[in-house]
Amino acid sequence: MTGGAAKGGGSRLSRRGLFAATSGLMVAAGEAPARALSAGADVVPFRGANQGGIVTPAQRHTTFAAFDLVTARRDDVAALLRRWTDAAARMSLGEPVPPAVADSGDVVGLSPARLTVTFGFGAGLFVKDGADRYGLAAGRPEALVDMPVFPGDQLVAARSGGDLSVQACADDPQVAFHAVRQLARLADDVADIRWAQSGFNAGYAPGEAPRNLMGFKDGTNNPPIADPQAMAAVVWVGDEGPAWMRGGSYVVYRRARIALEHWDRMKVAFQEQTFGRQKLTGAPLGMRSEHDKPDLSATDPDGNPVIPENAHIRLAAAETNGGARILRRAYSYDDGVNFVAERWPPWRQAMEFDAGLLFICYQRDPRSGFLRIFERMAKFDMMNQFVTNTASALFACPGGIGDGEFVGQRLFDAG
Amino acid sequence: MTGGAAKGGGSRLSRRGLFAATSGLMVAAGEAPARALSAGADVVPFRGANQGGIVTPAQRHTTFAAFDLVTARRDDVAALLRRWTDAAARMSLGEPVPPAVADSGDVVGLSPARLTVTFGFGAGLFVKDGADRYGLAAGRPEALVDMPVFPGDQLVAARSGGDLSVQACADDPQVAFHAVRQLARLADDVADIRWAQSGFNAGYAPGEAPRNLMGFKDGTNNPPIADPQAMAAVVWVGDEGPAWMRGGSYVVYRRARIALEHWDRMKVAFQEQTFGRQKLTGAPLGMRSEHDKPDLSATDPDGNPVIPENAHIRLAAAETNGGARILRRAYSYDDGVNFVAERWPPWRQAMEFDAGLLFICYQRDPRSGFLRIFERMAKFDMMNQFVTNTASALFACPGGIGDGEFVGQRLFDAG
Repeated sequence: MTGGAAKGGGSRLSRRGLFAATSGLMVAAGEAPARALSAGADVVPFRGANQGGIVTPAQRHTTFAAFDLVTARRDDVAALLRRWTDAAARMSLGEPVPPAVADSGDVVGLSPARLTVTFGFGAGLFVKDGADRYGLAAGRPEALVDMPVFPGDQLVAARSGGDLSVQACADDPQVAFHAVRQLARLADDVADIRWAQSGFNAGYAPGEAPRNLMGFKDGTNNPPIADPQAMAAVVWVGDEGPAWMRGGSYVVYRRARIALEHWDRMKVAFQEQTFGRQKLTGAPLGMRSEHDKPDLSATDPDGNPVIPENAHIRLAAAETNGGARILRRAYSYDDGVNFVAERWPPWRQAMEFDAGLLFICYQRDPRSGFLRIFERMAKFDMMNQFVTNTASALFACPGGIGDGEFVGQRLFDAG
Repeated sequence: MTGGAAKGGGSRLSRRGLFAATSGLMVAAGEAPARALSAGADVVPFRGANQGGIVTPAQRHTTFAAFDLVTARRDDVAALLRRWTDAAARMSLGEPVPPAVADSGDVVGLSPARLTVTFGFGAGLFVKDGADRYGLAAGRPEALVDMPVFPGDQLVAARSGGDLSVQACADDPQVAFHAVRQLARLADDVADIRWAQSGFNAGYAPGEAPRNLMGFKDGTNNPPIADPQAMAAVVWVGDEGPAWMRGGSYVVYRRARIALEHWDRMKVAFQEQTFGRQKLTGAPLGMRSEHDKPDLSATDPDGNPVIPENAHIRLAAAETNGGARILRRAYSYDDGVNFVAERWPPWRQAMEFDAGLLFICYQRDPRSGFLRIFERMAKFDMMNQFVTNTASALFACPGGIGDGEFVGQRLFDAG
């Protein structure tokens, strides 16, 4: 990018500009850092103090992928992260990935659709099978623990873990998938794709907690993403982490199959006891409105708790977890049907939906976030009889990417 | 439905009305036929001369499912089709499926999102394993052939065929999935779900041919859906079929995996030769604009055809297939990654995307439509080296559903 070229007439062609051009797909690829388009409602800035896709208002669609590094050379990894960074910056503006001729072209003419690409590092980048492959072991944060296996987990290794993660989120499913596809191509000979999983949210109004496939609102109790202080407390790594993680976050990914056929046979009153909330309004049991604070001490005339002891929101509450909080950023998934043997009465064995929730959450430290909360929840949550976690991963998402930087560059520069 | 109740205050609650109500999910379910809401941009009428979802402008998302009948009783089948019809009619208006308490509730507050539910009958409804299970064998249309296996097909039986089909299409993925989920619940003990497959289209402007994952426009050469005469000629069954199929159509479903990693390594010029169209503009080779008529006889100065002999659009053209035409109504799909051994150089074996095209087309008679076209295409199309069909199905979609009727009722009434 040499600057100053008129849109559609020079080396910088937006996706819409490219679409309008008739000179073919051969577009010169420049080198200058990307900048936000002026008409920015459909553009989320890629560079800044934090990565996008974390406190960004949730887009409608996601494609989440993990990669295994197959190179022996540290320089290859750094070069890949630079290619990925440059490509993600361009795609977030709706520009083709250079060289433009190799972009698959299936988003030509589409809006950038608020695309964000959020990168993460798995434990395997630092130590794999006991080996410090890239001389990065000293840079591994303590918070990037090996993910435990929880009671009830039925984890499929091929859908779990990975050395690097890429989460694309966009308001158009093709834009999200396109981003992961281009990055997978750029990874050639350095990293192999390990798994990819797409998900969606229904079209509820922005700011409204969407209903997930259980029919309940999801994320009502989230800390407010528009409040920087709340995000600093819950989501962003501060001085406690290694320098490359400052302004970063940790993402927990869990693919939670929901036994929809089973759930749908439960009475709504039982579903509400399971959640601890009313289905229609989202209000905590005993309250009137969705955003009322749950009263965990309230009892009914018989002295029983209004919100059951093993209700989801009681076990998830900060008050019962030493103040632990996370930012939920979940999507639903629908992968057709599979033969399933249910673990609960009436022990159906049949073709059932392989659908449920991509539980995705961000936090400053998973040890005082998800892991603390879920350790107890995995044992006692009434919801567990309807939910089976089939995949699990934890990635450290580096801090924001400055001009000219690549994601995680400070880790590589540190030695 | 007893009529006259004010919205939000009586037994007929729209999805938005239900959302606004605070009286809980217990909504009385009435019996009167559904009617279109007055504010109808997001409602496609369910009853009429033809089923919806065929010449309806394509919605953004689909969930296509097939069911196997497991009952021995014809009355059970008819009763299921009545339950399905009533439920689909309600859902297309955004109303919960009765009894409302059993609706999963995950679309409460959402628009109907132009939901259509298109029902189809597979050969197994008429004859299964040689048996006329329901006394309907005489009603089987000649056009409802057993689907052949084409050269190159790698069909997975568990993803193919089925006795009944349900295709839900909507502009919201959760609305489409919700519809299939409710119908699967209503099928209990009569039909088991066999397969379900979701797909999407990118957000191109209405009427614009969307780009599929190959980066080319898909459906440019479709007959015009707004032209009733063209649809009568190409899509709708006329007097030639059994009475219950008049105004109906035949749907061919093919799950076409695309070797995206392979395709993305081809030069754009080669991709264009494969399609016979320019990638950016969609114009036929040798022409200027997307909707220009391809000149199949044009040659270059060396005497070679401008549109290669084995280009996709030449082999698909009505002129080279005795006038055979179909209405394409395709969606893309993205099912993550799988271990794949490619069939072409460089014979990669790796985790690759399990993504591609849900080729879905409608026609008056598959013998003079898809089957005629694809018989030659399966052998010669240059595109075949990038595409593997992994599932296949053919269903007869009965004519439109009148007030008080259930789908296919005329077949059951006939004897």
